[in-house]
Amino acid sequence: MSDLARRAAANLTAVRRDKPLVHNITNFVVMNATANALLACGASPVMAHAENEVEEMAAFAGALVLNIGTLTDAWVASMLKAGKKAAQLGKPIVLDPVGSGATRLRTDAARTILAETKVSVVRGNASEILSLSGRSAAIKGVDSCNSVDDAARVAGRLALELGVTLAITGPTDLVTDGRRAFFIEGGHPLMPFVTGTGCTASALVGAFHAMDPDPLTAAATALAFLGLAGERAGARAEGPGSFQVYLLDALYAITPEELADSCRIREERHA
Amino acid sequence: MSDLARRAAANLTAVRRDKPLVHNITNFVVMNATANALLACGASPVMAHAENEVEEMAAFAGALVLNIGTLTDAWVASMLKAGKKAAQLGKPIVLDPVGSGATRLRTDAARTILAETKVSVVRGNASEILSLSGRSAAIKGVDSCNSVDDAARVAGRLALELGVTLAITGPTDLVTDGRRAFFIEGGHPLMPFVTGTGCTASALVGAFHAMDPDPLTAAATALAFLGLAGERAGARAEGPGSFQVYLLDALYAITPEELADSCRIREERHA
Amino acid sequence: MSDLARRAAANLTAVRRDKPLVHNITNFVVMNATANALLACGASPVMAHAENEVEEMAAFAGALVLNIGTLTDAWVASMLKAGKKAAQLGKPIVLDPVGSGATRLRTDAARTILAETKVSVVRGNASEILSLSGRSAAIKGVDSCNSVDDAARVAGRLALELGVTLAITGPTDLVTDGRRAFFIEGGHPLMPFVTGTGCTASALVGAFHAMDPDPLTAAATALAFLGLAGERAGARAEGPGSFQVYLLDALYAITPEELADSCRIREERHA
Repeated sequence: MSDLARRAAANLTAVRRDKPLVHNITNFVVMNATANALLACGASPVMAHAENEVEEMAAFAGALVLNIGTLTDAWVASMLKAGKKAAQLGKPIVLDPVGSGATRLRTDAARTILAETKVSVVRGNASEILSLSGRSAAIKGVDSCNSVDDAARVAGRLALELGVTLAITGPTDLVTDGRRAFFIEGGHPLMPFVTGTGCTASALVGAFHAMDPDPLTAAATALAFLGLAGERAGARAEGPGSFQVYLLDALYAITPEELADSCRIREERHA
Repeated sequence: MSDLARRAAANLTAVRRDKPLVHNITNFVVMNATANALLACGASPVMAHAENEVEEMAAFAGALVLNIGTLTDAWVASMLKAGKKAAQLGKPIVLDPVGSGATRLRTDAARTILAETKVSVVRGNASEILSLSGRSAAIKGVDSCNSVDDAARVAGRLALELGVTLAITGPTDLVTDGRRAFFIEGGHPLMPFVTGTGCTASALVGAFHAMDPDPLTAAATALAFLGLAGERAGARAEGPGSFQVYLLDALYAITPEELADSCRIREERHA
Repeated sequence: MSDLARRAAANLTAVRRDKPLVHNITNFVVMNATANALLACGASPVMAHAENEVEEMAAFAGALVLNIGTLTDAWVASMLKAGKKAAQLGKPIVLDPVGSGATRLRTDAARTILAETKVSVVRGNASEILSLSGRSAAIKGVDSCNSVDDAARVAGRLALELGVTLAITGPTDLVTDGRRAFFIEGGHPLMPFVTGTGCTASALVGAFHAMDPDPLTAAATALAFLGLAGERAGARAEGPGSFQVYLLDALYAITPEELADSCRIREERHA
């Protein structure tokens, strides 16, 4: 069993034992699904977005997850306030830049949160993540990538530029801080047919990161956990409706031992 | 096979092929369910309501769906802004006047959206739709209807008055622009026990309308699709919980051929 | 069969017959789940929070449910406006003080709603309920409780202080107005792994209270109903995903007779 498989099991065990409070400022579409995913895996979700409440809530929490779907200016202000408080208290912050790159409001919000708080992990899809770079060169670079390893090199440079760990999800997930890179297999083709599976990934990274101070291993093991739950759910589902049901059941049922046994994380060190 | 059955199959095929972006400004209760229904049938949902974002989003979208549940003045302003942009760009707009007729805020909002943007299809229940008329005569007229065909004539006059296609859902659905009328059979008695099935209908009309420029056939075939999915879900469900699950599975699984074979749309031309 | 069992059956029968409109001003996380639970049991939910709409809506409703999750100042203002209107019209008000005691915003909001409207039933967990007392003595008192009956005495004193019926949910539910106390058994260990089951309890109390003017019996029978539905769902569920599905199915399927037969409410009169 690899160190990472052991770490995955340890993180899941810790979440179920300590039930860390994960403070989410997230979008209206996924609030229910995110809360249910966090509860199913053993964590304690709280959703709170009022400017006059977020600092208190962030102070109670083990991790803060900022998700910019269904965004408005008022929510950006609350995210910045919560993020600054969390940063000051040393709590890990996960940013999910939903729709960054698509509209100015979202791109600006994601970049402002990165600039003004202390984000530990950014979890998104490739285009959202690439939109965070101030340099168009990085984006052009990825467009011409011919392989997953090429993509990892480009992502690694962006991680160093931003000073964060990047968790890029897709058929194969990639987690990198620019020095080390993890590739995670798992999931199921039905996942993109369910809204909020990416947001769930970000929230689970928050829960694991509340227990594991290393952003790389927290993110990689959380994604491996969700990937395994997705595989299990997909094996039984007849469509995206039953997939959602079985996904929550799997997040609840998977044991640390099963996670360790099934964990398919491959590590690459950057040259 | 009728022309409409062929059109239904063609519309579903087109949605799954092109995955049109459907921009929803909709209520908090159904955001998740609507997004999941659109994803299940193959479309790409986006929810965005910020005044400083809706024009950009509407410009990307294949259709705009405006739903006035859980409304506030700020949301009306965003809907008008998005609607004007969509109208300017020739994108189809679907209005779901949730609760129109019940409160002044909702009735006024629905009428303002109709007056100030260019709505293509209004999808609602009978009382919501009738509240849109400025003339009490139309409403009295319907109250005294003795048959579905009578109701269709009254609805047809209202459609001409408003200059839109009306999609009135109930045990039998009715779609009319005042010149032609379609009656659609399908659905299941459990549907009213699940929140947001009407909102789902409106969103699916948006998805089909993004592919089919004719509002009458887009609305009628979308409702036939949802009606068939409802029948399938109802045949297996033990209650409204499992109905929701099977409904999403059915929206995902029904093939264009199955839709064409089961499509029960009856057309009447107004005399 | 006890009087309470008969009352439980009568309340459920009345809800299914009259389909009372329950006006919810509630949090974003649970809006969909709450609406679906109310529909499943036969009631008619409406969610409306705009300051310029809530008075009209409260006037239509059979009961008003105020839930302070995902709170902001604007929502507190709407809750007060709706609550004052409902109080003026003699409609029962149920308060769910989600997170009261955790942040100032929530604690202040719960106390202000209690002070400025006429709340009939407060439904929460023990720590939320105890945060409502202005006197720290009450809280200290409960901390040192050695038994459920001790807790009931402390809760009874708080109910008299606040002038409301308290419905405190947990492994055993307790409903008291300070003169009488009901203990309700039921539910399932999976319930805390699903978000919003407490909020569902509050909404069902609202539905039953719309039919039953006695806050004690309305609350106790609603909790017995949810407890029975939870038992049924738990008996089939494989985890929190399938639990949610079966819970809605059970709320729909349980007959008044089954509820009366399974109702486990124990009454204690305070000395």
